[in-house]
Parts: sequence; C-alpha cells; structure tokens
Amino acid sequence: MQNQLNQLKTHLLEINDLESACNLLHWDQATYMPPGGATARGRQMATLRKIAHDKFTSPIICELLASLQNYAQNLPDNSDDASLIRITQRHYNKAIQVPAEFMAKLAIHQAECYKMWSKYRSENNFKAVLPDLEKTLELSREYANYFKYEQIADPLIEDADYGMKTETVRSLFTELRKKLVPMVEEITAKSEIDNSFLNQYFPEDKQLEFSRKVLDKIGYDWSRGRQDKTLHPFMTKFSLGDVRITTRVYENNLEQCLFCSMHEMGHAFYEMGINPNYEGTPLAHGTSSGVHESQSRLWENLVGRSREFWHYFYPQLQRFFPEQLNNIDEETFYQGINKVKRSLIRTDADEVTYN
Amino acid sequence: MQNQLNQLKTHLLEINDLESACNLLHWDQATYMPPGGATARGRQMATLRKIAHDKFTSPIICELLASLQNYAQNLPDNSDDASLIRITQRHYNKAIQVPAEFMAKLAIHQAECYKMWSKYRSENNFKAVLPDLEKTLELSREYANYFKYEQIADPLIEDADYGMKTETVRSLFTELRKKLVPMVEEITAKSEIDNSFLNQYFPEDKQLEFSRKVLDKIGYDWSRGRQDKTLHPFMTKFSLGDVRITTRVYENNLEQCLFCSMHEMGHAFYEMGINPNYEGTPLAHGTSSGVHESQSRLWENLVGRSREFWHYFYPQLQRFFPEQLNNIDEETFYQGINKVKRSLIRTDADEVTYN
Repeated sequence: MQNQLNQLKTHLLEINDLESACNLLHWDQATYMPPGGATARGRQMATLRKIAHDKFTSPIICELLASLQNYAQNLPDNSDDASLIRITQRHYNKAIQVPAEFMAKLAIHQAECYKMWSKYRSENNFKAVLPDLEKTLELSREYANYFKYEQIADPLIEDADYGMKTETVRSLFTELRKKLVPMVEEITAKSEIDNSFLNQYFPEDKQLEFSRKVLDKIGYDWSRGRQDKTLHPFMTKFSLGDVRITTRVYENNLEQCLFCSMHEMGHAFYEMGINPNYEGTPLAHGTSSGVHESQSRLWENLVGRSREFWHYFYPQLQRFFPEQLNNIDEETFYQGINKVKRSLIRTDADEVTYN
Repeated sequence: MQNQLNQLKTHLLEINDLESACNLLHWDQATYMPPGGATARGRQMATLRKIAHDKFTSPIICELLASLQNYAQNLPDNSDDASLIRITQRHYNKAIQVPAEFMAKLAIHQAECYKMWSKYRSENNFKAVLPDLEKTLELSREYANYFKYEQIADPLIEDADYGMKTETVRSLFTELRKKLVPMVEEITAKSEIDNSFLNQYFPEDKQLEFSRKVLDKIGYDWSRGRQDKTLHPFMTKFSLGDVRITTRVYENNLEQCLFCSMHEMGHAFYEMGINPNYEGTPLAHGTSSGVHESQSRLWENLVGRSREFWHYFYPQLQRFFPEQLNNIDEETFYQGINKVKRSLIRTDADEVTYN
C-alpha cells in the first residue's frame, strides 16, 4: 500500500505546487502588480487552476484512492494516512462534479472582479462594481448547481466549513442573535465612549514599524514570512516556510494597520504550525474557515484588545506617537479600542484611503 | 488552416501562462521571498517547468505543426503565421530531445544554486558555491548530450542565439581581440583618471529616487512595469502589460544603481515594444540574447554614458547629491563614468554590499 500512497502523495504535491504558484500570482496581484498586468494575470490564474483541477480529477487519482480504501479502513480514523485518504477522497468526490472549464471561467471572473473593485473602491463607487458582483452571484449559483443540495448555499458553505449547512448557520445565528442584540442595545444605550483620539494623524511608516515590532515580539518568524501592504488584508501560504501576511494603513486611524496585522498573524500562526509531514497534501491547510477565523480573532481581539497586552505595549506605542497619545492614559486607550458600535462592516474603520 | 492555427495558439498560450507563472516564482525568489521559502520554491518552479515541457512536447503539438507545414510554405517567410509555425517547430524539434524529468532536475538545481549563491555572495565565499557550480557544468553537459553537436557548447549557445555556434563566437572574439587589446593597452598606458568621487557615500533612497526619475523621463511606463531591488539585476516579463526590472544599490558607488536601471530598462523597452498580436507565442520574446543585449547596452552606454545625456541630467544629479558633487564639474563627471579599466567582471563595481 505504501507504493500507492506514495504515488498519491506525488500527484498531490504536483497539484499543490500549481495551487501555490496560483497563490503567488494572487499575492502579487494584490500587492505589487502594475495595472497593465491585470488581464493576463487573470488568464494565468485560470490556466493554473484549470490544470490543477484536470490533474486532481484525472482517473489515476480515482484509481489510487480506490486501491487505498481497504488500507484506510483498517487504520484508526484519525491516523495521518486514514485522514489523508478520507479527505482527499472527499475533495475528489466534490471536484469531479465541476468541469475544469468552469473553474477557469470562475478564476477569470474573480480576477476581473478584483480589478474593478480595486479601481472603484477608492471612489466609493458601488454602481461600477455591481454588474461584476451580480455575475459572481450567478457563477456561485452555477457552481452550486453542479451538486445535489437542500439549500443552494450548502455546497458553498461546505467548501469553507465541512459539515456546515445553511440550516446549521441559520440556527447558529438565531441563537447568537438572542443574546447579542440585547447586549448591543444595552451597551449602545450608555453614553458613547469618545475614542476620537484614534483618528488623529498617524504617519504610515510609523504605524507599519509599530505593527512589525508587535509581530516580532509575539514571535512571527520573518525568515518564514513577510508583511506587505494591500487593499484588503489577507494571509497566504506558498509553503510551510513561506506564510505571508498583508495589512493596510489608514493614516487617520490607528486601529486598522495594527489589528489587521495581528488578525492575519493569527491566520499565519495556524498555517505555520502545521505538521511538516502534511506539506503538499490536503491536510496541510486549516481544518475549516471557522477554525481559521477563531485563530485570527484570538490574536486580534482576545489578545490584541486585552488589558494585559496594552499594559505591556502602550508605553511603547506612546513613544512612537508622543504628540498624539501622551495625554491619553492607558485605561482610556483600552476603552477606546474596545468601543462597541453598530456597523455594516465587521472591520469598519471610518475608511479614508490616501491616494 | 485557421482552425489548426488557432488550436496551436491556444496550446501555446497555456504553455506561455505556465512559463509566465514560473517567471513570477523566480522574480519573487530574487526580490521578496523569505529564506524559508527557498526549498519549496525550487520544487514549484520545477513542477511548472515540467508541466510546460510535457505540454509542449505532447503529440498534439506535433500533429498541429505537421498539419500547418503546407500552409506555411505558401506564405512569405517573414509573415507572422509562417514565422510562428517555423519558430515553434524549431523549438519543438529541440524540446523533444530532452526529457521533462531533466528539465525539472535542472530547475531544482538552479534554485538550489541561487540559494547558495545569494547566501555566500556577501561573504565572497567562492568555495562554498563551487560544488553547485560544478554540478551546473555537469548538468549543462548532460543537457548538451541530448543533441547532436560539433562542439559541446553549441546546443547551449543556440538556445540563446539561434544560428550561432562555438566556432562563430570564437572567430567573432578573435576579430574583436585584435582591435580591442591594443585599444585597452593604449588607454590604460595613459595617466589614470581619478573617478574616486563616484565612491563617496550616496544614500540608497536618493540613488533609487534618481534612477526612477531618469527612467520616468526616458519613458519607462510604470503602469506596465515596476522596479525592485535584487542581488543581481535582471528584467522579467509576465505579460506585455507587466515587464519588470530590478536593480541593486551600493551606497559607496554611484554607478551601480543608475546604470543597472538603464541597462534593464533597455531590455524592458525591447519586450514592451513587441507586437501585441504575438502575445503568448514564441514570437513574443527577443529574437536572441545578442540583440537583447544590444538594446540594454544601447541605453546603458551609448545613451547613459553620453555627453548629451549628462548635459541634461547632471545638474539634476548635483541637486540630489550637492555635498558629494557640487565641486565636480560636468566634464570630470563625464570622464569619470567613462573610465576604462581592466576587470574580471563586466559590471565590476568595487562591490561592497551593505547588509
């Protein structure tokens, strides 16, 4: 069986390399790519996705998986080999429902959509991106229709969180709403906290320097990653030794750069901590978007907005921005960054972009 | 025939996308990649090269080319279609001699070699990279031996300059030597020019800013390219709309950053000027390394080291570096950057790297 298992791993590694290259094409698109590169970039990502999809859905993968079923059944469910075979089979069963041409079409649309969004975002011009968003919806429906489902969102939710369905998500939010709505009402009924000191002018280079200092101190390993600027922060992985984060800076908002950095660092820590033996297999990713987000928000909020954290870091932050913060005490700062307010966007930050 | 021709172009575009992705993997390796990414990066480049090679040497390319021979023979030799068919056939004939596994092995070695070179370069530690260079030689021989040749370097030279052979290169240099050696002797017999003013301290950010000002003025299109720092400057293309250059800066040498920038800009101009109809085909690259280098050196030397160029730019350069250059007149500067000296390296620049 080791022979078939090794063969499977070799195929999976090749597919992983194509996907990693595609991740780099995307990272570059979102960080350094000049605008002239946009059209070809979309096509290049589509080509790589299509080849990866073709390779993953090829008969050899099917045969290898079939030949490994008996072996897997005699192993504990949570053993590495059984998990690899089970999860690869699950992904395979889903992938063969979707034609490679559709995956390519989707990748081209996503790149086009990104191009339009990045162009019209700074103008707050929703109308200009609406047709692309409508097409995204249409393609999402087309994608879902390759599968059997109870609710049309099920196949999409399942891609992100295996085992979750529209119904699960609905009942989860119904429960949360019962507790959260009164809590928000209670808080916002109180007199509003004034945290306008967070909206003074904080120069970009200083903000970036401070965020890197924090990442450094917490233990982000710069020999296995880096931080760059982008429009909408994300974490991406090209290998276990290259897990990068991105951030953005608003010079009239002190929270954006720092908490985005800590959020993406949380994602990166999760990926950087994966067992090296899983590298290049479907096991080498977070188990779900839900768990991934738990890691990012752990660092952003439970750590990054805690009293203890700022008791340590606030004097350093004041030294970075003495004019802006020397007359703001630690407790005021702590309350300011924890201010609760209603917003349409989770990371709403009174966005003002500097062009 | 248009059907077969379009099919061929579709296949070539897919191969081009794989190669472009590979170029980005390399650009990133040489600019921003953290050291932890090195091993996987080599493997990823190898995977993409192998797939591109497999696709290019597949029977469908052979069949399409065969079906297009009659069509091509009835066209003028220099027509776009005839040229595309002829040059693709030439590349195909060469590619099928070499197994994809060898191309992958070579790519992995090149990445390893780059890793070692970039590590030991700053220490001037030749011994540490010698084993890798020896392996490069060995692999070059292995590559050459897939072909029939008169001299072992012929297949390698031909990859860079079609039609050139060891014998052509030898006789070319024999001719040049007759004229150049006495010329160098005559010049170096004269009293040596003092251009030590070029080796004062010139801060990196100022050097980069000036080089970008020059590129800007000459007309490098930043919406279709960008400039980043690397260890050994190069130009690379991901599409006709994304042709990037790199440079390096030595803070004790004013020539390095500027002339590297102009050199790579020359390469970029050549690539940026290619007919968009050729995009994604083997016609969309320079015709040879020789012609390519003629373009880079045209800008670096014939323009960049000319009196006229500096008559325009020198006052601006003085404003960038008043302390260093205000007491150096235009003629002294002009002679200083044109100083002839013997050197083992073409771009020898009294290298001192700043870590």
